[in-house]
Amino acid sequence: MRNFKMILQYEGTRYQGWQKQESTEHTIQGKLSALLTRMTGQEIEVQGSGRTDAGVHALGQTANFHADTNLSAGEIMEYMNTYLPEDIAVISLEEVPERFHSRLNAKGKTYCYRVLNTHIPHVFDRRYTYMVPEKLDLEAMRRAAEYLTGTHDFKAFTSTKKGKKSTVRTIESIRIEKGESLSLQAAGAEDEIRFWYSGNGFLYHMVRIMTGTLLEVGAHKRRPEEIAEVLASGCREQAGALAPAKGLTLMEVRY
Amino acid sequence: MRNFKMILQYEGTRYQGWQKQESTEHTIQGKLSALLTRMTGQEIEVQGSGRTDAGVHALGQTANFHADTNLSAGEIMEYMNTYLPEDIAVISLEEVPERFHSRLNAKGKTYCYRVLNTHIPHVFDRRYTYMVPEKLDLEAMRRAAEYLTGTHDFKAFTSTKKGKKSTVRTIESIRIEKGESLSLQAAGAEDEIRFWYSGNGFLYHMVRIMTGTLLEVGAHKRRPEEIAEVLASGCREQAGALAPAKGLTLMEVRY
Repeated sequence: MRNFKMILQYEGTRYQGWQKQESTEHTIQGKLSALLTRMTGQEIEVQGSGRTDAGVHALGQTANFHADTNLSAGEIMEYMNTYLPEDIAVISLEEVPERFHSRLNAKGKTYCYRVLNTHIPHVFDRRYTYMVPEKLDLEAMRRAAEYLTGTHDFKAFTSTKKGKKSTVRTIESIRIEKGESLSLQAAGAEDEIRFWYSGNGFLYHMVRIMTGTLLEVGAHKRRPEEIAEVLASGCREQAGALAPAKGLTLMEVRY
Repeated sequence: MRNFKMILQYEGTRYQGWQKQESTEHTIQGKLSALLTRMTGQEIEVQGSGRTDAGVHALGQTANFHADTNLSAGEIMEYMNTYLPEDIAVISLEEVPERFHSRLNAKGKTYCYRVLNTHIPHVFDRRYTYMVPEKLDLEAMRRAAEYLTGTHDFKAFTSTKKGKKSTVRTIESIRIEKGESLSLQAAGAEDEIRFWYSGNGFLYHMVRIMTGTLLEVGAHKRRPEEIAEVLASGCREQAGALAPAKGLTLMEVRY
């Protein structure tokens, strides 16, 4: 059996998330597995680096699959891009050693959460950004982000039910940058704020809850120092709102 | 009667172009006029700087309308952005002198045609770009573009039936630039080519036919020097193919 690693882009809008489910055909993993099964005539299971929620996008999701095929990596990639729906694309595909596992071997991930800090809708970016009209204090959000950086128990920042699994994770960096919107804005207004999160792994809803909490700090509804107390509490109710899925994009998985 | 000027963004995908038609509700002008008529209780006619074809986008279309209203410009803009479909947005709205006319007073326009020069689909940009997998010779396209710059009879570069109206136009500049795709590409590949056209006015299909012709030069299907002959012929069949609408965006109208 040969093993293939691929890097994927998708727009999450139409999908019930990454993970294949019995109840719906509309998952990214389900689309990919079905297509490769059709291509090879074998039952193919695509393994992702991790799940993404319903509505979350990816520009650099990684996945792998085993198949008994004579096709080259280039031929498989071309076949996939021909038959995949236009909101999913394979941007690279290569053969890897048989033991490579996209989830178990992942060393780190980077997510980007895009906020449009304006009351004026941006037509081209509307599917990939969350619009926040209130004025946001960048410095306050950056100070708050420092409390989240490092190794912590992020139990307050996940929606997972109480379980036995560890909720300790390490965030290597949180970068908050302001910039011109990507939509070729004639106006050239600097109204996009991007939150970049890099870490060794993220819990269910963790990036979206961190973003929702940082946005409350930015709007002066909380002080940056409160983040330390929220972490210590281990209590979901102490953290901020869950930011909408559509603003979030999985940018990169590192090995 | 007060006169209001607005700058509009729209994604053209769902629409039968700018201009209101009897046969369809799906035009940008139709949506805007109907909404303002509802807001004011008066029959409002929105006048654009010019038409855009079905499927063509805008980040800086300009339009004006006359209305007898006590609402402020800010209130009108807020009302419109609340009720417009999410693929149309008003990014500025101001009161202007009564004689201002968005079409007759327009001094120049800038269009951008976006080509993804790759065989790998870009999910986030797919609605706003045209994918061309063949290798393109930038220098040849730039030399060809020089023949189009200046004042010429562009009869060969329009789909309009023979008529009495002048087909002479002045193109101030054509800029062809290569750059990183706007879709936050993790890969950072320089695979987007943008064609920027500025001129005092453009004929029906003119930007798309110029782009289609330049792409044939870029793929070495024509020599740059042929452009002079095509212009001189005045014959549509001598020019290149009509590039797809979805790659084209009206960026700015100058007054």
